Amino acid sequence: MDAAVPRVSKTPLLDQVDTPADLRQLSEQELPQLAAELRAELIDAVSQTGGHLGAGLGVVELTVALHYLFDTPNDRLIWDVSHQSYPHKILTGRRSRIRTLRQPGGLSGFTKRTESDYDPFGAAHSSTSISAGLGMAVARELSGGTNNVVCVIGDGAMSAGMAYEAMNNAGARNERLIVILNDNDMSIAPPTGALSSYLARITSSDSYFYVRDIAKQLAKRLPKSWERRAARVEEYTRSLWQGGAWFEELGLHYVGPIDGHDLNQLLPVLKNVRDAGEGPILVHVVTQKGKGYAPAEASADKYHGVAKFNVVTGVQAKPAASAPSYTRVFADSLIAEAKKDEKIVAITAAMPDGTGLDVFGREFPDRTFDVGIAEQHAVTFAAGLATEGMKPFAAIYSTFLQRGYDQVVHDVALQSLPVRFAIDRAGFVGADGATHAGTFDLAYLGCLPNFVIMAAADEAELKHMVATAASIDDRPSAFRYPRGEGTGVAMPEVGIPLEIGKGRILREGTTIALLSFGTRLQETLKAADQLAALGLSATVADARFMKPLDTELIRQLAENHDVLVTIEEGSVGGFGSHVLHYLAENGLLDRGLKVRSKVMPDVFVDQDKPEVMYQRAGLSAQGIVETVRDALQMNKAKAVRGRA
Amino acid sequence: MDAAVPRVSKTPLLDQVDTPADLRQLSEQELPQLAAELRAELIDAVSQTGGHLGAGLGVVELTVALHYLFDTPNDRLIWDVSHQSYPHKILTGRRSRIRTLRQPGGLSGFTKRTESDYDPFGAAHSSTSISAGLGMAVARELSGGTNNVVCVIGDGAMSAGMAYEAMNNAGARNERLIVILNDNDMSIAPPTGALSSYLARITSSDSYFYVRDIAKQLAKRLPKSWERRAARVEEYTRSLWQGGAWFEELGLHYVGPIDGHDLNQLLPVLKNVRDAGEGPILVHVVTQKGKGYAPAEASADKYHGVAKFNVVTGVQAKPAASAPSYTRVFADSLIAEAKKDEKIVAITAAMPDGTGLDVFGREFPDRTFDVGIAEQHAVTFAAGLATEGMKPFAAIYSTFLQRGYDQVVHDVALQSLPVRFAIDRAGFVGADGATHAGTFDLAYLGCLPNFVIMAAADEAELKHMVATAASIDDRPSAFRYPRGEGTGVAMPEVGIPLEIGKGRILREGTTIALLSFGTRLQETLKAADQLAALGLSATVADARFMKPLDTELIRQLAENHDVLVTIEEGSVGGFGSHVLHYLAENGLLDRGLKVRSKVMPDVFVDQDKPEVMYQRAGLSAQGIVETVRDALQMNKAKAVRGRA
Repeated sequence: MDAAVPRVSKTPLLDQVDTPADLRQLSEQELPQLAAELRAELIDAVSQTGGHLGAGLGVVELTVALHYLFDTPNDRLIWDVSHQSYPHKILTGRRSRIRTLRQPGGLSGFTKRTESDYDPFGAAHSSTSISAGLGMAVARELSGGTNNVVCVIGDGAMSAGMAYEAMNNAGARNERLIVILNDNDMSIAPPTGALSSYLARITSSDSYFYVRDIAKQLAKRLPKSWERRAARVEEYTRSLWQGGAWFEELGLHYVGPIDGHDLNQLLPVLKNVRDAGEGPILVHVVTQKGKGYAPAEASADKYHGVAKFNVVTGVQAKPAASAPSYTRVFADSLIAEAKKDEKIVAITAAMPDGTGLDVFGREFPDRTFDVGIAEQHAVTFAAGLATEGMKPFAAIYSTFLQRGYDQVVHDVALQSLPVRFAIDRAGFVGADGATHAGTFDLAYLGCLPNFVIMAAADEAELKHMVATAASIDDRPSAFRYPRGEGTGVAMPEVGIPLEIGKGRILREGTTIALLSFGTRLQETLKAADQLAALGLSATVADARFMKPLDTELIRQLAENHDVLVTIEEGSVGGFGSHVLHYLAENGLLDRGLKVRSKVMPDVFVDQDKPEVMYQRAGLSAQGIVETVRDALQMNKAKAVRGRA
Repeated sequence: MDAAVPRVSKTPLLDQVDTPADLRQLSEQELPQLAAELRAELIDAVSQTGGHLGAGLGVVELTVALHYLFDTPNDRLIWDVSHQSYPHKILTGRRSRIRTLRQPGGLSGFTKRTESDYDPFGAAHSSTSISAGLGMAVARELSGGTNNVVCVIGDGAMSAGMAYEAMNNAGARNERLIVILNDNDMSIAPPTGALSSYLARITSSDSYFYVRDIAKQLAKRLPKSWERRAARVEEYTRSLWQGGAWFEELGLHYVGPIDGHDLNQLLPVLKNVRDAGEGPILVHVVTQKGKGYAPAEASADKYHGVAKFNVVTGVQAKPAASAPSYTRVFADSLIAEAKKDEKIVAITAAMPDGTGLDVFGREFPDRTFDVGIAEQHAVTFAAGLATEGMKPFAAIYSTFLQRGYDQVVHDVALQSLPVRFAIDRAGFVGADGATHAGTFDLAYLGCLPNFVIMAAADEAELKHMVATAASIDDRPSAFRYPRGEGTGVAMPEVGIPLEIGKGRILREGTTIALLSFGTRLQETLKAADQLAALGLSATVADARFMKPLDTELIRQLAENHDVLVTIEEGSVGGFGSHVLHYLAENGLLDRGLKVRSKVMPDVFVDQDKPEVMYQRAGLSAQGIVETVRDALQMNKAKAVRGRA
């Protein structure tokens, strides 16, 4: 066995643990072994499924300690973001399904209320746990309950304003609430921001020392009976003098820092925190992302998100790509524009890798800004840059831009400032599931005056849209593109700005008009082929712009065809709705145009392969053909007899 | 002259000041007199226009000092929220128009980039200034500029996560940026939250003392030449030992607290801050909302927002209301429900008065939660309460709910948690203008699975919708209603839950179907009368629900009429778009139904009287009639000849 793999030699304990109730039957002395087995199980499972590994490895001991000491699920345990919840899932009745993680029909890669009673709150976006936990704590007080509420939140998540809002509120109240700050000096990328430096000062200071007793830290919060126990605790606990003053000023009683991989520290401290009196307590736990698996520890991103991998070597199975990813095309295109125009700058909210701005940043370090998990600030910071003549590109996933929505409305659109939004992960995203799907941006941006909104049909189009956005200087613009690889089309040498508000016709037909917006264009072209086989002649157009609409194109499609179908990777309220609205307002429906609007379904869709998700949603060639046939009231028999 | 009014006796100075350049010609000794004149002018102007008074009174001296010392507009001065910017407007070339504040065609009640070069950033929603200012400071560094950037932000605004995100980012960077914390211990209501208590401890502590020199505070940031001047400053400045540690830990150099009404403190401190070296500096200025006008000082809300008033007596001219406001009906209805069901709780984000939760809170103090200016936290806090079986009502204006959008999507809708959103200020809002209009909620909520979305046609309907929301226990719901008074309909004794997804028909007709969603129903009924006069028989329906749609009603309207018009107080992408989508997908447009969708226009609309705004938007009876006539291709001549 390679040294990279944790060794487990004694009688297996994990096999005896189906739920936390079983775990609580073990002795404290057995817990380190259980933790080692849990770590090995986690590594083995993720090696088969892919997914988030580093974060889970960092909280193995913490997970064991929390379920051992707290009465879950009666005590509420909330994992912030919850990509670190795989060990929690293994210990809470889901071990038998752990190798279905992120697979179609399998366990979610995040906590999910419908999946387990041990998941009191679902997550995936960052920094929600303290707000949710405070709600639960207040509900408990109103209902006369006595259970505990524990939120586990990373240091990266602490850069989000939402976490601060929650602490500011919790600290002014008196409900018992336990916040565990899991400080691994990492979010997805190394964290940025002043608070992060502050935490680093606490944990790296030479002035660390063992306190005489933890009572100094907990004195205000502890029941009287506690003092007897203090002596037992002191040897396990160390604390920095005034280390947590920042949190104390926010009204959270600060305890720590403690070593999150040492059960001899975790158990007594958490036990005492559990038994403390009223008010919110923050326990500062220091962990190491990727802990206990050598390849993860050695990796720069600590195996944050991995493909399937070989456990012994740590080598990930990355299938050869047949085309560059949209993300990479965006980054390369932006670099090309930035070489020509020094006013171009780029902003990310803690996602340099995911957005491709790591690549941009290597080329232009002074023009790249990672503001932390802080989409609100990211958007308005970009607006401020735009007021001074800079050309900011804010690269934010569709789902995360939701968190900066008011700033998009109030600071960008209302002032017509030329901030460019590069909206990655538009449409279904696959294994990350419903929480990460880019479903709503067309509806929530489309309603805003002054915006230019584009969607790329392929990676060459994306390159032109980056150039287009760079050229739009008098109002905001956005262009969206999906997760994953492009279509493999030939790439243009340079991006050339598109004519604003003009689509293009790819194929001329007579009866049917198919108007695509985004990367469903390939399926739309396939649908046209299949319609041709049915004897139906289809025009295929790529709208390119949702705003401003190409009204000339739409009018032409409406007037010269019997059926008009719009296709998009977004919800109702988006592109199709804008087309319908234009058609209605201009009387283009009055003569009986058979118009249909194909959108993402009005449900939250669980993880699957994107193509399967689109197939089920009717957003495939087959689905488009079916829609046309329905519009023409052709059943299969008719179609064959009448047209073949 | 009444003692309430500030006295100005010497030769007037304000008449000599059109712009800050004129102001800078005055001597420091003349500034107190100028401030007194400015205060008198502000009071007189707002007594004629109504608007925000207390906030402006609190920053008169600060405004004078900033424009005196800084080279505006080359130095950027950003007012957070900017309802305190009236004195700034008077000093920056807008005095001649100051009595048009908030009037149709007049000055905005907020800063606005299109209004003046002295307004580098528009605002109205809170807590955006530091983000925008950091963007400007970074742009300056990238462009090799030397100007200053000054953000003035209130202590209430500091409870918003966005301000924290910006400080966390600014504090980790090295750009010169001046943040002035205007601490008046007030936002609109007295502030809540731990940070507020912290600031109170700083400013009320007995350990206040004069420091030997301000160099201790500014040492790290000052150029060497500064030390000579330190002696002159020390007598003006006092500081609390370690008072600003919380900000220092966030990387902002803390200076203060100083008395914001004492120009002898403001001028030397701000001068030295201006001349300091690199990095962000936070100056803690203590002011009094309503300062210098006795009726404002004596008032609980410090004359935050006032009607026109008598300057001598301070008595506001409040016209007698003919019907209760929607806000009050909401509050009373919620109280009625809460008396029957102890699980009902209410949440506001720093708007107890505006939302009516002040009234609710007097009845149920333990079940009312003001979380501060923190919409993100408010929503997820409500979600947490809902997980435990509480029935939370989150009362948030349409425009402010934008700031909690991701939380609505990710924490509420995705988990199908029964949080009830009471969405006040839906539609046009009048004098507050575009920044406060409730335009987009139907588009941004309508696309979310699992939601129930209602709009009240009148105040009786609102009462039933509160009861309906209380009864919806398995998914989120929202009901929207406008600013202002109800229609005066008879109120039901009790609210009775409506059948989910069912509208109602108010008038049966044959040719035209008018489908209203919201309080345009009255205008829609008037339109039906006018159509009858044209010989056109109109059915009038109230949709009540946008989600789920009353598809049976819509089908019936579509199948039995020639024309179908939807009417709503929202943007494209909302109710009308959902109706069009349903009609298209179900083939109900195929026979040539003349369908029209009347929505708020795709522009940001400046302040005016709401009825004028609706008239211009075509959302009046006349506009509806015009739409029907257009759909029937009746020009005036034809209409008269053919039908009369």
